[in-house]
Amino acid sequence: MTTQSLTLGVIGAGRIGRLHAQHLVQRIPQTRVLMVADVVEAAAQATAQSLGIPHVSTDPLAVVQHPNIQAVVICSSTDTHADLIEAAAGAGKHIFCEKPIALSLPTIDGALAAVERARVKLQIGFNRRFDANFRRVRQAVVNGEVGQPHTLRIISRDPAPPPIEYVKVSGGLFLDMTIHDFDMARYLVGAEVEAVYTQAGVMVDPAIGEAGDVDTAVVTLRFANGVLGTIENSRRAVYGYDQRVEVFGSGGAIRTDNDYPNNALLSDAHSVRRDLPLHFFMERYTASFVNEINAFVDAIVNDRPAPVTGVDGRAPVVMGLAARRSYDEGRPVRLAEVEAQPTPRG
Amino acid sequence: MTTQSLTLGVIGAGRIGRLHAQHLVQRIPQTRVLMVADVVEAAAQATAQSLGIPHVSTDPLAVVQHPNIQAVVICSSTDTHADLIEAAAGAGKHIFCEKPIALSLPTIDGALAAVERARVKLQIGFNRRFDANFRRVRQAVVNGEVGQPHTLRIISRDPAPPPIEYVKVSGGLFLDMTIHDFDMARYLVGAEVEAVYTQAGVMVDPAIGEAGDVDTAVVTLRFANGVLGTIENSRRAVYGYDQRVEVFGSGGAIRTDNDYPNNALLSDAHSVRRDLPLHFFMERYTASFVNEINAFVDAIVNDRPAPVTGVDGRAPVVMGLAARRSYDEGRPVRLAEVEAQPTPRG
Amino acid sequence: MTTQSLTLGVIGAGRIGRLHAQHLVQRIPQTRVLMVADVVEAAAQATAQSLGIPHVSTDPLAVVQHPNIQAVVICSSTDTHADLIEAAAGAGKHIFCEKPIALSLPTIDGALAAVERARVKLQIGFNRRFDANFRRVRQAVVNGEVGQPHTLRIISRDPAPPPIEYVKVSGGLFLDMTIHDFDMARYLVGAEVEAVYTQAGVMVDPAIGEAGDVDTAVVTLRFANGVLGTIENSRRAVYGYDQRVEVFGSGGAIRTDNDYPNNALLSDAHSVRRDLPLHFFMERYTASFVNEINAFVDAIVNDRPAPVTGVDGRAPVVMGLAARRSYDEGRPVRLAEVEAQPTPRG
Amino acid sequence: MTTQSLTLGVIGAGRIGRLHAQHLVQRIPQTRVLMVADVVEAAAQATAQSLGIPHVSTDPLAVVQHPNIQAVVICSSTDTHADLIEAAAGAGKHIFCEKPIALSLPTIDGALAAVERARVKLQIGFNRRFDANFRRVRQAVVNGEVGQPHTLRIISRDPAPPPIEYVKVSGGLFLDMTIHDFDMARYLVGAEVEAVYTQAGVMVDPAIGEAGDVDTAVVTLRFANGVLGTIENSRRAVYGYDQRVEVFGSGGAIRTDNDYPNNALLSDAHSVRRDLPLHFFMERYTASFVNEINAFVDAIVNDRPAPVTGVDGRAPVVMGLAARRSYDEGRPVRLAEVEAQPTPRG
Repeated sequence: MTTQSLTLGVIGAGRIGRLHAQHLVQRIPQTRVLMVADVVEAAAQATAQSLGIPHVSTDPLAVVQHPNIQAVVICSSTDTHADLIEAAAGAGKHIFCEKPIALSLPTIDGALAAVERARVKLQIGFNRRFDANFRRVRQAVVNGEVGQPHTLRIISRDPAPPPIEYVKVSGGLFLDMTIHDFDMARYLVGAEVEAVYTQAGVMVDPAIGEAGDVDTAVVTLRFANGVLGTIENSRRAVYGYDQRVEVFGSGGAIRTDNDYPNNALLSDAHSVRRDLPLHFFMERYTASFVNEINAFVDAIVNDRPAPVTGVDGRAPVVMGLAARRSYDEGRPVRLAEVEAQPTPRG
Repeated sequence: MTTQSLTLGVIGAGRIGRLHAQHLVQRIPQTRVLMVADVVEAAAQATAQSLGIPHVSTDPLAVVQHPNIQAVVICSSTDTHADLIEAAAGAGKHIFCEKPIALSLPTIDGALAAVERARVKLQIGFNRRFDANFRRVRQAVVNGEVGQPHTLRIISRDPAPPPIEYVKVSGGLFLDMTIHDFDMARYLVGAEVEAVYTQAGVMVDPAIGEAGDVDTAVVTLRFANGVLGTIENSRRAVYGYDQRVEVFGSGGAIRTDNDYPNNALLSDAHSVRRDLPLHFFMERYTASFVNEINAFVDAIVNDRPAPVTGVDGRAPVVMGLAARRSYDEGRPVRLAEVEAQPTPRG
Repeated sequence: MTTQSLTLGVIGAGRIGRLHAQHLVQRIPQTRVLMVADVVEAAAQATAQSLGIPHVSTDPLAVVQHPNIQAVVICSSTDTHADLIEAAAGAGKHIFCEKPIALSLPTIDGALAAVERARVKLQIGFNRRFDANFRRVRQAVVNGEVGQPHTLRIISRDPAPPPIEYVKVSGGLFLDMTIHDFDMARYLVGAEVEAVYTQAGVMVDPAIGEAGDVDTAVVTLRFANGVLGTIENSRRAVYGYDQRVEVFGSGGAIRTDNDYPNNALLSDAHSVRRDLPLHFFMERYTASFVNEINAFVDAIVNDRPAPVTGVDGRAPVVMGLAARRSYDEGRPVRLAEVEAQPTPRG
Repeated sequence: MTTQSLTLGVIGAGRIGRLHAQHLVQRIPQTRVLMVADVVEAAAQATAQSLGIPHVSTDPLAVVQHPNIQAVVICSSTDTHADLIEAAAGAGKHIFCEKPIALSLPTIDGALAAVERARVKLQIGFNRRFDANFRRVRQAVVNGEVGQPHTLRIISRDPAPPPIEYVKVSGGLFLDMTIHDFDMARYLVGAEVEAVYTQAGVMVDPAIGEAGDVDTAVVTLRFANGVLGTIENSRRAVYGYDQRVEVFGSGGAIRTDNDYPNNALLSDAHSVRRDLPLHFFMERYTASFVNEINAFVDAIVNDRPAPVTGVDGRAPVVMGLAARRSYDEGRPVRLAEVEAQPTPRG
């Protein structure tokens, strides 16, 4: 519980920006959202009106530079993240930024250096760390309930692929979708990944392949502490959002299932069944989004370390670049190779 | 979704009053809570302060009579419910009232007549009807997914008994605890109960028996449409709140399980296990409390019938009186007997 | 494991007689089935042929009196059980007899007295006691894993009613079907039942009502040790055999689910589901039938007490008579009433 | 159901040989086991005596050459399999042989050629294909219940590693343990694997590493039809045998869980839990062993194709060799490489 108040501005009034704004306004009483900015004025206006936010702008820098705003929530398009982080840090604002920071390591490093210099707090939007199921798995690992971890497995499937226009600019499956799983892998195991190997294909929609991306992937991970990991992705699970993990170790295993809208079990002449899982991230991760923005506010107000740092934002990008390189070259790739040569050979 | 605004007052700043006030303030943007009243001034003050409610009183009638208040939420002690309903109806306010309306049928009937005369809306606080699991069961019955219902079973166990001082004034297990299950029985089956038979005992705490109450009960129900029902109650389940139902019919069966804080499954050298269910009603029924107060606001703003009526508030009291009489006399009791002679023979 | 050999005869070559014969021949190497008798000669012949049983008769007494036969397995129709028990006891044979011993208490008592005099072993065919799920529940009660038991619940539903001709001679739901649940209740709680109360109806097939029986029932039980129990029966669950129990106590609860042909879980665009439970008792209780006949052989060969005694065979009949009387008279019935006046009044 | 009779001989009276002999004798009435051979005479004697098998030998060829024996069941050590297959084929006997046929491809090919020439039936002992859970998954794939398969995942963990002496001669994890999973992968997907990539380590017991083997592995598979697969192995799961699969496809997913000795769920003050899964393959795969030997008998008596052929026995060995090579060389390995150069480079 925070007891002091905090004034924030939100940049980007798309789905996720509106969600964060709403949580700040309705769920976290000690905060005040003073301004929302979006390049589409109508979007900013609509958000401001429905939530009672007093100021609106089409210029993100209006948020960054507003003297009464203490913290900014960056939900604009990925290509603007790094510049806005640098600007906000330069203005002495604390920063919550959606993932990924950027798709280029030098750009990320520039942004993180600015944050470092400004000594402001930076939290990256890996909301799944705040999900009750995954928290419980992490707790089991920390408490030693599964002994020494040996293997990790992450199932992560979306109910449907994004629009093909989005696919083209998203950075691809590994930097747009798997990036959440890369973060989850680091979070659950509590160690860094050293190498990845990717197998992938276009099984869901040929248009995704034509756009240069894949829609189905199996990525294996080798952690520095010897743990072996697997991530299984698909852009389309017809039964809805499929988000499960398992950590197996010397003392046992812990695994999670999907969350459902209800737990009613119906038996009739045909089968014993339940309704489909919660459909997508807005339903499944509702509570985790509230928890993460609450944690951000708490970190500032009570001067605690942000729970998902700039380093946490950078590492999954390295993993995503390595995963893509592994796929392109059909071989295991050490993350050190990406660090040494961040852009693909070519 | 409500689009118009509504101004409310809350009477009673105990746990449940604070909960309703909080949901109105934080979760339902179109509402405004203008005043909170409690006989304990400090309680009203604390609630007002934490939620930004402008007015406070120690007099419930100050809420009822405030000209700007359109609806009242009655969360004071049971013995005040009927009088406050009458007063609020007399003042033309819409009314949300916690269960039970009263423990005496003539008193209830007086209050309901006042509501009828005033043509205001009255909703009784049977929140479990708004729980996603039970909703799904009701939907299955309505949709015919289980065919014609034959039997109903309700498991309802609390994690621990209330303080013995509360037990003495609560009206006893059947009117304090089973009353929720009586409502659930009517809701799920969609028919009235004609007769009950109670077996019960003192198994949890002898002090409950010394106070003239029981702590463990099995109540069987015969519905007007022939359905047979069973309710199983205990004041103490060491594993936490146990709230499950099953409806069995000609076309199948539907049943619900408890809700859990997470779905992680841990396998170690001893067992395959999960954490305990959500501990009690504040955790288990969080969403249902939000849903019910939302439904109340919606009923007023959009002039729909209240989803849990005065009749719905009265019927479970009749069932509770009959259940107790059955226990006292060791025989099945028809509800018509209670209607004919509402006070126990003696 | 039995190490000595045992020679048996089987009386009755219907479904259950064939099953026992098959298990003795194929699963229990130390036994030899010397003769099978059935009033329908072809049935006896067919069983003998398929299992390699050397002798066949249409006269049950041929089995009872054969000098080389040490034990008889009585699977003929219920009305023959008591006489065959007396005859077998008189001939010094150990006896396995399907339930019920008889539907009349004096008849049962006569048979049990003969067994007592002859000092032979008698085991009654309550096979469900040998099911792994129910065994585990009993073990939990014995071990104190649920503390002191407070309530018991048994769900017992058949996939479909028997032929109406069978219904007419079966003794009715309570003596034909519920009798298994009465035995289970005594077994799980480890105490005697003092009183029952029955609610029941004809919901599955009017022809069952026309035959003077019911097809759906809820029977509540009061045990001598204060435990309260509920049994829920239906002659037709469209999803198959439904056999579940729960014991709740001061230290927790233990419950069982149905058994399934496989545990595969299928998620598609409509639901998350599994195949229907094992269809009926031949599938569900396969292992328990092997276990019970094995236990009978073991009791003889190693001279241990039979695990389900004559007393265990008699008590559920008393409960069944009381349950029917409760239904007929619409009131709770103490078992002592049935003992005092075993035949219905009137 | 077989209606004709078949006379068999069993070679090898170790655990698995005794199991097959017992099933043939006790569960499959139409068969006769005429002889059991084992290099340890006492082992052969004990098996013969307990099952009533008339003849015993210390010479496997005595079984192969016995004129009355129509089929042999080869359960001796792996290094003898290929020679015995050739001998049995030469003698015109049908052959059931435990996996693996051999660890060398030329040896395997020699044995399979002999079978081909003799036109006898050969079935390899991949018993898991006859497990009800995996059968259901295969059926779902064949029926199109999950649409077009995209990914496959197999979890396969033993409760404890074998003795280190066995590890040294077993062929290693990939040819001794993963070989079952390689077969399962081909069976479930219904396609051939083209390439594998192995990550593995020694996490369970350093002695296994000192013996040149690994005890933990993640093997990824690329099938000819584009499906991607993952196999996760451990030599020690402290909670017992862990055998689960999932097939995900365009139309949904199907997955299996472990099997348990009972399904009782115990809730107490600490957790909601169940007993550990069936401990190891003798408990978990009991029914599948009966089914597989039954299928072998059926294939001969009714002249159907053997359900697990010589090709099915060879392919997993290729995969195992490839998996090991991948581990040794830290790169994906195409199966064609192993075919081209069956022995490791060196």
